[in-house]
Amino acid sequence: MRFGLAQINPTVGDIKGNVEKIKKAIDELKKKSPDIIVFPEMVLTGYPLKDLLLRKDFLSSVKEASEQIEEYAKERKVAVVLGLPVLGDGNLRNMAYIFYEGYFKGYSKRTLSQDFDEDRYFVEGNKALLLVEGNEEKLGITIGSEIFNEDVIKNYANFGVSGIINISAFPFVADEYELKRAYIACLAKKYNIWIISINLVGGQDEFVFQGASFVVNPYGEIVHELESFEEELSVVDIDTSANPVLRPSIDREEVHVEVIVINTKRKKKKYHPQRKVNEDRETLILKALKLALKDYVKKNDFEKVVVGLSGGIDSSVVASIAALALGKDNVVGVLMPSMYTSKESNEDALLLAKNLGIKTYTVPITDVFENYKKALKNVFGKSREDVTEENIQARIRGNYLMAISNKFGHLVVTTGNKSEAATGYATLYGDMAGGFALLIDLYKTDVYNIARKINEVFGKEVIPERVFVKPPSAELKPGQKDQDKLPPYEELDKILKLFIEKHCPPEKIEEEGFDKKIVEYVIRLVKTSEYKRVQSAIGPKISSRSFSADWHMPVTNKFIV
Amino acid sequence: MRFGLAQINPTVGDIKGNVEKIKKAIDELKKKSPDIIVFPEMVLTGYPLKDLLLRKDFLSSVKEASEQIEEYAKERKVAVVLGLPVLGDGNLRNMAYIFYEGYFKGYSKRTLSQDFDEDRYFVEGNKALLLVEGNEEKLGITIGSEIFNEDVIKNYANFGVSGIINISAFPFVADEYELKRAYIACLAKKYNIWIISINLVGGQDEFVFQGASFVVNPYGEIVHELESFEEELSVVDIDTSANPVLRPSIDREEVHVEVIVINTKRKKKKYHPQRKVNEDRETLILKALKLALKDYVKKNDFEKVVVGLSGGIDSSVVASIAALALGKDNVVGVLMPSMYTSKESNEDALLLAKNLGIKTYTVPITDVFENYKKALKNVFGKSREDVTEENIQARIRGNYLMAISNKFGHLVVTTGNKSEAATGYATLYGDMAGGFALLIDLYKTDVYNIARKINEVFGKEVIPERVFVKPPSAELKPGQKDQDKLPPYEELDKILKLFIEKHCPPEKIEEEGFDKKIVEYVIRLVKTSEYKRVQSAIGPKISSRSFSADWHMPVTNKFIV
Repeated sequence: MRFGLAQINPTVGDIKGNVEKIKKAIDELKKKSPDIIVFPEMVLTGYPLKDLLLRKDFLSSVKEASEQIEEYAKERKVAVVLGLPVLGDGNLRNMAYIFYEGYFKGYSKRTLSQDFDEDRYFVEGNKALLLVEGNEEKLGITIGSEIFNEDVIKNYANFGVSGIINISAFPFVADEYELKRAYIACLAKKYNIWIISINLVGGQDEFVFQGASFVVNPYGEIVHELESFEEELSVVDIDTSANPVLRPSIDREEVHVEVIVINTKRKKKKYHPQRKVNEDRETLILKALKLALKDYVKKNDFEKVVVGLSGGIDSSVVASIAALALGKDNVVGVLMPSMYTSKESNEDALLLAKNLGIKTYTVPITDVFENYKKALKNVFGKSREDVTEENIQARIRGNYLMAISNKFGHLVVTTGNKSEAATGYATLYGDMAGGFALLIDLYKTDVYNIARKINEVFGKEVIPERVFVKPPSAELKPGQKDQDKLPPYEELDKILKLFIEKHCPPEKIEEEGFDKKIVEYVIRLVKTSEYKRVQSAIGPKISSRSFSADWHMPVTNKFIV
Repeated sequence: MRFGLAQINPTVGDIKGNVEKIKKAIDELKKKSPDIIVFPEMVLTGYPLKDLLLRKDFLSSVKEASEQIEEYAKERKVAVVLGLPVLGDGNLRNMAYIFYEGYFKGYSKRTLSQDFDEDRYFVEGNKALLLVEGNEEKLGITIGSEIFNEDVIKNYANFGVSGIINISAFPFVADEYELKRAYIACLAKKYNIWIISINLVGGQDEFVFQGASFVVNPYGEIVHELESFEEELSVVDIDTSANPVLRPSIDREEVHVEVIVINTKRKKKKYHPQRKVNEDRETLILKALKLALKDYVKKNDFEKVVVGLSGGIDSSVVASIAALALGKDNVVGVLMPSMYTSKESNEDALLLAKNLGIKTYTVPITDVFENYKKALKNVFGKSREDVTEENIQARIRGNYLMAISNKFGHLVVTTGNKSEAATGYATLYGDMAGGFALLIDLYKTDVYNIARKINEVFGKEVIPERVFVKPPSAELKPGQKDQDKLPPYEELDKILKLFIEKHCPPEKIEEEGFDKKIVEYVIRLVKTSEYKRVQSAIGPKISSRSFSADWHMPVTNKFIV
């Protein structure tokens, strides 16, 4: 059987644009005469849609669009599978539709995803199955995380399918990517079926979709792969007609089965499975961040971005990724030195900008800062300088960047990382000011790793070596270092990861060999900086628990370690 | 039967403090020898808990605390009902426990609430019932919005209960308050039962709980009421022993029933039901905002708040509510005049402060503003002044207020209302800077209504009449008026309410008699200011759909009216 896999990047809400993209993909793939063309989950609308799903007029537009695709599939004489939200009988469902010869069948997702708050919007599908019967094969349809629900797979296996088409919109999680693929491969082997996994690609606010669609054979081998973080249209011939063998014996659930019959012509095997080169963790993360930024910029009709350059590792990484994602002419760096800015920081920032070939402005904050102090003198009296004056400086910089944004229509990309967001080591309305927080789900130690990868990708030292070796500092008072207030990042990041991503209580973290006092100090920092995070810019999730997408904590909270 | 109703205000996460509060309430009520003491839903932990519910160490603390209450109820020889989260067999449940004579029974909420994303955390209870059998009566237990699930009520009615105890944590919604009570009253009449509704009281981040617990008799009459937005311990004798009559005939669901028997002594009827004076909508909203602010301040260990005073209606209302909630000595007003600030605005702000008796500072922004323009000159060149320069001014003010907050530890209360938040008529990091957005769920027209109510409560014109009559203006450029960019608030607010709270698509709104162009303009403003709202301070929900608690929209979104 010949599959056309359409790994495309839709835009949330742009139904008309998405329809055009889908039609183009059908035309492109049609040239290679596939029996069936498969698109990802929610491809018609983009994903996640959040409360757009509560708008009736939106759902009507989706319905009209799906009728257009139905018509188009008929005209083009090809079976098309795609994902969309469907309102029927007052209930909303996350569905896969298959269009063929002017009619269609639908399948509703049974296992709703936690990632996108699907319980808020959708009712669960009932225990119905949708079988696609070709001339010599039978396939089942599943949606998203359902592929991990063995009940669903078992049921299909029971009905003798030789393969399952899983359409998905899995958000990228760097440390789970291999695991998920391995799990799906195991399932294919266990149930002796093919699994065709077609995944969404693109950036949408706090999520990045990886694409990386793949096909696994009944031996559990991944035989065909598509690109990560890029659109790709791919055709592959797979012999799904082989009779299923070696089924495990299974208790049959009571299910309702729908069948659609499509005409699959036997062809000479022409399109062979392709394997991609394995990419390491840093490469994938870098690609994820590039796509997340690019899509946020483009899909929100920005062209250029502006980044405050401090000469530190975070802003260096942000500016570099922006140059990679948008081209150097679309990145503006702003140096905003104060009396506490070191000569080295200034040099490093300028050198970085030169290496990247991006434009810079230098706007000192010293005079404005002095004026603030003068203006506030009658309020502050003789009180000593403290963190207040540090924050004023950071907020002057925020105001500069936002002014440049307002004047020229550039998007401000913030540079804070996950270690800072976790501990509150950032100034609200200061360095936190901006529209997109590119590194918000990257621990500081990971930022260094990505920085190395960036220099590797550029093939030269765009981020100067000194930026890697000098101790991190906010430079808001004389001689300040991050490590004055925080444990060393190596230690801090491990504690944070155990607490945030592994859900470890303090005692468990201590058992891993960390000092009780430090653990409690860190967890208290996380708690007391909640009020900052609720006002943070959004940014791409790359971990299993990002502040932007997954972390919902009360601000008012007296639960103390 | 004698009921002790404990309408108390717990603090999220402060389990130890909540246990003390509960014990004190038991002691206090015990003096009047009730047969049973009833506390609200989730009283042991405060609510909503969000991802605290994912912390195992938190849930262990809850378990220990519930054992303490069990012990205490045994010592004090009284039956106690209360709500708490319970982890068992790896599943988390929203439960009601009843403690009596050293043992307990539990009931799990079946109908989870959308308000608090309960689907994210809890599994639904199975179809079990918990009956409390006294010597001459039988009562059922339900939790929260379950009282609106007739299946649950029917089941209890079938088992011959004469009353239902509903423990709840209903978030306050001004326009639904009467409706909910009326509905519950109808149910009581329909099933010929008493309903004892005990509701949480207090402010927690974006929610306010009203209390206003009540008892309705089998004729559907509300016979006993507790205060709104205040703690209250109340004892009432109700004759729940009357045999149920006139049951509608019902299909019985297959259910599992648990029973706990408590000793209810027949006493002389001593504590008679009490009715409270009906309060109008504005009074309730004002009380809600007062409690929301007070609890946010106190529970986050602040003492004083600081408010920017512009002489406009919003900041006047915020300062007045703060004075009512915290006392005038705990409110600091800051005037931050520019060259565009009118003499009248300045006078009105000072007069308000004088009327309230609050301290003020005046910190002009003119010099700092000039310095910004100078510093940015080499970036902006000869470009004309535009919204950029307006925003710089607003952000200088934000920086001032935050500096005062940082220096003295006061909480900045922001003054933006729902009409502004909806249309983006506010400056991010400017007037939006602060920890708590008191008016964020109040339309501008409602702000005026509350302002009138404030003067009524003070018994004098604390908010000067001129503030009501002058046209609203941000005063960020010469001659600026809100209505230059926005439709009149009377019209705007109606359109917004239809769109946001009534979920009306544009055509429906037009059918209500609004101009198509204006409707589309307004809806587009709502869409394009999403990026501001995701970084807004949180504030109390008082409508059925608040931006802070209920509105989840994608920022990247091409769905156009």
